[in-house]
Amino acid sequence: MPDSALLTDSYQLSMMQAYLDAQMTKTAVFELFVRRLPAKRNFLIAAGIEQLIGYLEGLRFTGEEIAWLQKAGKFRASFLDYLRQLRFSGDVDAVDEGTPFFADEPIVRVIAPLPEAQLVESRLMNIVHFQSIVASKAARAALVAPEKILIDFGMRRAHGAEAALFAARASYVGGYSGTSTVQAGMLYDLPVYGTMAHSFVQAHASEEEAFEHFAKSHTGPVTLLIDTYDTEAAAEKVAQIAPRLFAQGIAIQGVRLDSGDLGAHAKNVRRIFDRAQLQGLRIFVSGSLDEEQIQDLLASGAPIDGFGVGTRLTTSADAPYLDCAYKLQEYAGTPRRKKSEGKATWPGRKQVYRFQDTNGIYLRDRLALEGESGSEANLNGAALLKPVMRGGKRLHPPLSVHAVRENLLRELTRIPPSLRKLEPAKPGYRVEISDRLVELARRLDQNSNIF
Amino acid sequence: MPDSALLTDSYQLSMMQAYLDAQMTKTAVFELFVRRLPAKRNFLIAAGIEQLIGYLEGLRFTGEEIAWLQKAGKFRASFLDYLRQLRFSGDVDAVDEGTPFFADEPIVRVIAPLPEAQLVESRLMNIVHFQSIVASKAARAALVAPEKILIDFGMRRAHGAEAALFAARASYVGGYSGTSTVQAGMLYDLPVYGTMAHSFVQAHASEEEAFEHFAKSHTGPVTLLIDTYDTEAAAEKVAQIAPRLFAQGIAIQGVRLDSGDLGAHAKNVRRIFDRAQLQGLRIFVSGSLDEEQIQDLLASGAPIDGFGVGTRLTTSADAPYLDCAYKLQEYAGTPRRKKSEGKATWPGRKQVYRFQDTNGIYLRDRLALEGESGSEANLNGAALLKPVMRGGKRLHPPLSVHAVRENLLRELTRIPPSLRKLEPAKPGYRVEISDRLVELARRLDQNSNIF
Repeated sequence: MPDSALLTDSYQLSMMQAYLDAQMTKTAVFELFVRRLPAKRNFLIAAGIEQLIGYLEGLRFTGEEIAWLQKAGKFRASFLDYLRQLRFSGDVDAVDEGTPFFADEPIVRVIAPLPEAQLVESRLMNIVHFQSIVASKAARAALVAPEKILIDFGMRRAHGAEAALFAARASYVGGYSGTSTVQAGMLYDLPVYGTMAHSFVQAHASEEEAFEHFAKSHTGPVTLLIDTYDTEAAAEKVAQIAPRLFAQGIAIQGVRLDSGDLGAHAKNVRRIFDRAQLQGLRIFVSGSLDEEQIQDLLASGAPIDGFGVGTRLTTSADAPYLDCAYKLQEYAGTPRRKKSEGKATWPGRKQVYRFQDTNGIYLRDRLALEGESGSEANLNGAALLKPVMRGGKRLHPPLSVHAVRENLLRELTRIPPSLRKLEPAKPGYRVEISDRLVELARRLDQNSNIF
Repeated sequence: MPDSALLTDSYQLSMMQAYLDAQMTKTAVFELFVRRLPAKRNFLIAAGIEQLIGYLEGLRFTGEEIAWLQKAGKFRASFLDYLRQLRFSGDVDAVDEGTPFFADEPIVRVIAPLPEAQLVESRLMNIVHFQSIVASKAARAALVAPEKILIDFGMRRAHGAEAALFAARASYVGGYSGTSTVQAGMLYDLPVYGTMAHSFVQAHASEEEAFEHFAKSHTGPVTLLIDTYDTEAAAEKVAQIAPRLFAQGIAIQGVRLDSGDLGAHAKNVRRIFDRAQLQGLRIFVSGSLDEEQIQDLLASGAPIDGFGVGTRLTTSADAPYLDCAYKLQEYAGTPRRKKSEGKATWPGRKQVYRFQDTNGIYLRDRLALEGESGSEANLNGAALLKPVMRGGKRLHPPLSVHAVRENLLRELTRIPPSLRKLEPAKPGYRVEISDRLVELARRLDQNSNIF
């Protein structure tokens, strides 16, 4: 699925034409960062860097696209010639996918000729913003239910095809166990899970018949949906059917509950199964869940083994967007600063250093100018931005999503405990600004030349 | 961009295999509807039907996809053979795009062999749900700012590529004037608009230089962004530059403000331009807007000519999803009813009749069984569900988005005035349930056979 180079905002093309007219093709430095965290996020998780690299490597205008631009009549022939041969030739640094990050910290930096760095803004944000939203939300569920199976069920109400696919990937990167979206399994090598739907039960003359048909047809252990009519009555039927099927070599591994008071039903169903000596049958729940309901259900002692989380995960319903920006920090060797009210940025090429205590728990970060030392007292700060592309080419083969997920799970254990809770941490994580960076910002503000 | 047939939930494939094993391939009737409206929506607008038809017409499994399924090992060879030759052969009825709709009203009905109708559920919802969300939100802005230019600026924070493209289309269908997303212009024939970014100003040695470069490079009238450093100071510069450029044949059509108190800045800027005899210069604003801010700005008398609306539109931030469902209503000629707690559905093949007063204003709707008359007293109800596919083929050529938008704008004038406001209307729109439908539901509930 190559991206179209026209998947950008119109003004990017207008500005490119103007840059070329004015021969402003020197090196620009842009950084992607989040201005502030959503109310219900103590940290964010970076994701989508891999798809960003794929986009940048594959960037080109097709003949059909150039012809359409020509017909649209807004651009000159010389500019269209430039677009025809355009490839991304820049350098990109980024944080590792699965890295926790905080306000003001650049997570992607692009260093490229100004027109190229400008063109890619819209899609770069479109990819990294969304995957980071979903990974951040997924990690919260992973923190409150570390021993549980967490499955992305949210394809149907994700915002289009790519949202469904990206959400499947990003939720796995954020600590989920897998997805129900089949194509995401194929594209990203994700574990694919699924149960059955109410319609399957309804299409049969009886619930028992539906359960038997499904179990016999299914390859591998099966999970039955038991809330179509009456949850406890259906659990009794499962308790009767399971041993009989097991004798035929067919394993029912569990049931799914999708409506009503999930905690109360889970307790009832567990009791029914335990009474029938079916301690191994697992209880899986779904239906308008997110990490807060999961936490409440587990706190109430509900005997639940796994959760299917749909819409609220794939739309990040409680924080459907981040206040993020991709800003010019330097052009032709000179640092730049935007000063719009409420939207001022830290200028220059920056690096983020992360300090940890002797147990590996993160203490604080420092936002500094690149080249500033990340060491202080007896601590060495780890630099978070790392080279991923040079001269338009990727530097490293893609990491598997499984390795990225392992990284994330390790990172989650290093976040300060107060930030690992769902409740907003006061104070939040500390991000210091280096003295040299503060000084540079002050100097730029005083410099009337840039007006 | 053909959709992958694997863009579906895993359980759809498992259920299909089980249906085929049990030879349950008779005709099923599924309907897509919304259970309840979000708190801030007095009506919803249907959109995405055109893309749904495209998906269903193009549905097929590629050799690569079949090979991947085979490798995954969950399905039998006979089932994979069935998938290999599968095409969608069903009938689809749907409401016209741009039609207002309400809770419980089916907006899409699929009548097809059970396995086909089941497979398409996930993507069908994924397309229609998202476009309807955005069209519904866009229509609210169109209602509060009917004389203004409304542009979708939200690509960068939309949830992936397709969300950006679908949002551009759906917002236009919902009454917007156009989009900044170039590819959406190419794909859907939408008007494309754009201004300039802060980075363009920052990359230049001075703001004046940036304005002049941009205006001279741009083909056609140009809009300048004036809030990078100091909005009013920049407006004064524009007032100086504009006549000089105009003498060179270059038209500055307006300015964009993107930060601070937009209403206050707009008034200041208007005053500066009017004093300079530049009454024709238009003021365009953007920055964290949605229909509520637009209403407030206009109510405050801010002299604003157009609005760029981004993230909150393309993520439908105040209602990022709908409580919608695609439910089996009939199988093999017998009506079906799901009775899960809080999620019971109206059974059978249904139709929605809409009644209007003598001025064409909608009075109420009636949800009835298909074949029930839509007439009562001296009123004839208009049937909203109309045939769009038969035997897997589309019945009509695609309607242009411009025609769909015209329909929508007409429809908005027919919604009862109390529902046209942003504030929740109490009571909401009246949707009656026909006596025969109530009776059918009661009969199914009493029929213990379906347990």
